[in-house]
Amino acid sequence: MTHRYKLTVEYDGAPFFGWQSQRDGRAVEDYVRRAIQGFCGGVLDMAAAGRTDAGVHARGQVIHIDLDAEWEPARIRAGVNYHLKPHPISVLDVVPVSSTFHARFSATRRIYCYRILSRPAVPTIDRDYLWWVPQELQLDRMRDAAQVLMGHHDFTTFRSVQCQARSPIKTLTLLDIEEVGQGRFDVHAEAPSFLHRQVRSLVGALKVAGTGQWSVDDVAKALAARDRSACPPVAPAQGLYFMQVDYDEK
Amino acid sequence: MTHRYKLTVEYDGAPFFGWQSQRDGRAVEDYVRRAIQGFCGGVLDMAAAGRTDAGVHARGQVIHIDLDAEWEPARIRAGVNYHLKPHPISVLDVVPVSSTFHARFSATRRIYCYRILSRPAVPTIDRDYLWWVPQELQLDRMRDAAQVLMGHHDFTTFRSVQCQARSPIKTLTLLDIEEVGQGRFDVHAEAPSFLHRQVRSLVGALKVAGTGQWSVDDVAKALAARDRSACPPVAPAQGLYFMQVDYDEK
Repeated sequence: MTHRYKLTVEYDGAPFFGWQSQRDGRAVEDYVRRAIQGFCGGVLDMAAAGRTDAGVHARGQVIHIDLDAEWEPARIRAGVNYHLKPHPISVLDVVPVSSTFHARFSATRRIYCYRILSRPAVPTIDRDYLWWVPQELQLDRMRDAAQVLMGHHDFTTFRSVQCQARSPIKTLTLLDIEEVGQGRFDVHAEAPSFLHRQVRSLVGALKVAGTGQWSVDDVAKALAARDRSACPPVAPAQGLYFMQVDYDEK
Repeated sequence: MTHRYKLTVEYDGAPFFGWQSQRDGRAVEDYVRRAIQGFCGGVLDMAAAGRTDAGVHARGQVIHIDLDAEWEPARIRAGVNYHLKPHPISVLDVVPVSSTFHARFSATRRIYCYRILSRPAVPTIDRDYLWWVPQELQLDRMRDAAQVLMGHHDFTTFRSVQCQARSPIKTLTLLDIEEVGQGRFDVHAEAPSFLHRQVRSLVGALKVAGTGQWSVDDVAKALAARDRSACPPVAPAQGLYFMQVDYDEK
């Protein structure tokens, strides 16, 4: 009999080639799989809520794993974390779930945060953990652009050409910008699911709107174009954080 | 004629042997001095508000520099930052000041922040930028301990034996703990001036109070002992941030 567990996982994306397993075994998934093997001999099945790209960080990636024995959740957390050392990947929480729970398909909402620092001086602390924009960003302009992008749209302009989703139509339930300090902006994005590179592409548009390079109308036109080549430069991976995944209560 | 400028400086403490100039030239002060030399040929005089220890970060260290020519403040910032590359030190702000201004002696208040993460799982992002405490910390207990430590006291217990201050008597005007996230505590400390290792020593006391290892009475006794050997283990440098220095308006 298999036992399914839901794990909340945090990682620093900088040293890894993204979530999804790579041939050379240097993806976050590979390290997690090997740590589970080290802890209890192996995992029967495993799936993640989101396949973060190389360099993208996670505060609350969710995965499910099937084990062939029952374990105390706290023992799984401690055991897997022991075997994850010294890699900056950490299991924060473990909960037993039914076999109908699926980390990817049962998810009802995904939440991302994108961190920007706008100031003339180069960043020092956090230099690998945000996007440095030397120009001034105007919050009002970014918010106006976000209003255009929120909602139910064909996001072809804002997804990678390699995106494997069948449809480019998604519902962006939240896109907002919070000023958390002088020149420090956090972009909050929420949707039931996202397209490949969608958040970074959207943030790229917010940035050119914020500097004044693009008008709100330019943003609306880019969205309406449904053409990847209409997308402004995509924001770098190092500013993106996969924050949280929500599931139905049951 | 010399021209004095006040510089606000940010740095990541991790790669440096503290602020104060070292023989091997690898202190923050050494890098700043060489960058000014690269920019304009040299600096006549220079002083900093605080000598941060090895590994301690700064968000708002303040220094003054004397140059033999007059410069646009923005040009000094850009020029010195250009020559600071690729070191994680950044001049945030430059203001011309009178020759009576002294970064150290004119300061009326210094503000520090100490970041703690209390949770069983190892940290990943930020692992070198906070103190990881695997035990649970109780906010109320830390706050009660802080109340005992705040005010005008002989802080002999809470200063390094190498401290060069003439008197161990200081006035701690603020010591408070803010819970900024799940298990994430920011300790805020303010005083006209601090003793060597004082903030990290105080945070060490807050930690043992927070875990329940020490009672508030134990903290009071340690303070009253005026004996360095009564100090609990000092908090590590990597969690400490020199945030701000205040000066009289004039």
